[in-house]
Amino acid sequence: MKAEILAVGTELLLGDVVNTNAQYISKQLAQLGIDVYYQTVVGDNAQRLEKTILNAFERADLIITSGGLGPTEDDLTKETGAKYFGKNLVLDQKAMDMLESFFKRLNRKMTENNAKQAYVPEGALVMYNKNGTAPGVITEENGKILVNLPGPPRELIPMFEEYVKPYLAKKQENIFVSRVLRVAKIGESEAENMVKNIIATQTNPTIATYVKGYEVVFRITAKAKNEE
Amino acid sequence: MKAEILAVGTELLLGDVVNTNAQYISKQLAQLGIDVYYQTVVGDNAQRLEKTILNAFERADLIITSGGLGPTEDDLTKETGAKYFGKNLVLDQKAMDMLESFFKRLNRKMTENNAKQAYVPEGALVMYNKNGTAPGVITEENGKILVNLPGPPRELIPMFEEYVKPYLAKKQENIFVSRVLRVAKIGESEAENMVKNIIATQTNPTIATYVKGYEVVFRITAKAKNEE
Repeated sequence: MKAEILAVGTELLLGDVVNTNAQYISKQLAQLGIDVYYQTVVGDNAQRLEKTILNAFERADLIITSGGLGPTEDDLTKETGAKYFGKNLVLDQKAMDMLESFFKRLNRKMTENNAKQAYVPEGALVMYNKNGTAPGVITEENGKILVNLPGPPRELIPMFEEYVKPYLAKKQENIFVSRVLRVAKIGESEAENMVKNIIATQTNPTIATYVKGYEVVFRITAKAKNEE
Repeated sequence: MKAEILAVGTELLLGDVVNTNAQYISKQLAQLGIDVYYQTVVGDNAQRLEKTILNAFERADLIITSGGLGPTEDDLTKETGAKYFGKNLVLDQKAMDMLESFFKRLNRKMTENNAKQAYVPEGALVMYNKNGTAPGVITEENGKILVNLPGPPRELIPMFEEYVKPYLAKKQENIFVSRVLRVAKIGESEAENMVKNIIATQTNPTIATYVKGYEVVFRITAKAKNEE
């Protein structure tokens, strides 16, 4: 399976926030043996978001988005995803109930625009949010899977663990395990020269070299059958 | 000016590294009043890198890349950039001298593949690297500017400060200053409701709301003439 990771939020394009979600999701997908070919960040802009989703689905089977599920006018991710699949947004009563009790618990007034968070693309799998207001959704049709996760990592990570990981694991024939070997005292070019033959001939496990900070690193990745 | 930020490196797509460079560069460009519409991460893959550059230059005037300037076979950023502009790579003697003395200083053997770092696109501005081996380059032609920076932040940041910032500042008519106002005790939707009229009518400064961790934030941005 080929995947792309798409973070939505102008705050990322302004440099106010580091995109740690992309790292977290990439790492998870690598373990599941799902190839990530692109990470993209796009602002809260309907037209560019739509283009990005169209473009990504031309290259990939799976898009995982983060952000843009909130209550405000510029939260557009779910709407844009629904449009891609030609789905209407319909009320999910459980999501609405959770939303209402969330505000009750915090003793906060629930403004009208909050209700939009309880609307989900028809037929989507709803991922209820225990750590915030916006549920996530998974829409799958014709071999294309769109996973919409909320932006805050404290919401995104538990939702990924609970819903997305098992959902994707079921589809994977193989899993992957990587070990990183830190190499001291030599540069990347020298290190690469040392393992050149292995890089060229070895297919399982594979080996790759790169520089991480001041270190040269060998990344060794083995593939095995997924028993799940 | 419209910009895109492009990080090159499979380690980012595997989730081994967080893309802090994108945040740093985005922040710098915001201050210069340069709009960033997309951040992209692509692996060390010639074909996808080339496609990404082509695609980005269809939408933007400026691309700033990080990574892929090293000595190994999969470091392809400079080569791909040169190809886009139809330029040959030529030896930069000063870069070669710096490279040789870098290895002498460290008492390390300079392997043959290191020499490729001293080759730059013909006519490019060479950004000498005081903190590593790979020089950066700026290529500008027909209104398209490609800035290639090395991946490690300890090399990228001083190079941006010394070369890229003044290079771009000269082209900017306006500069921008942002202040962030942290809002307590209310949710994003309620906060947005409070400033809805300002958002709709105000053009300088502008105001935007978003959630950052547990906080709601107002971002106020003012535009002024660049005196540089």
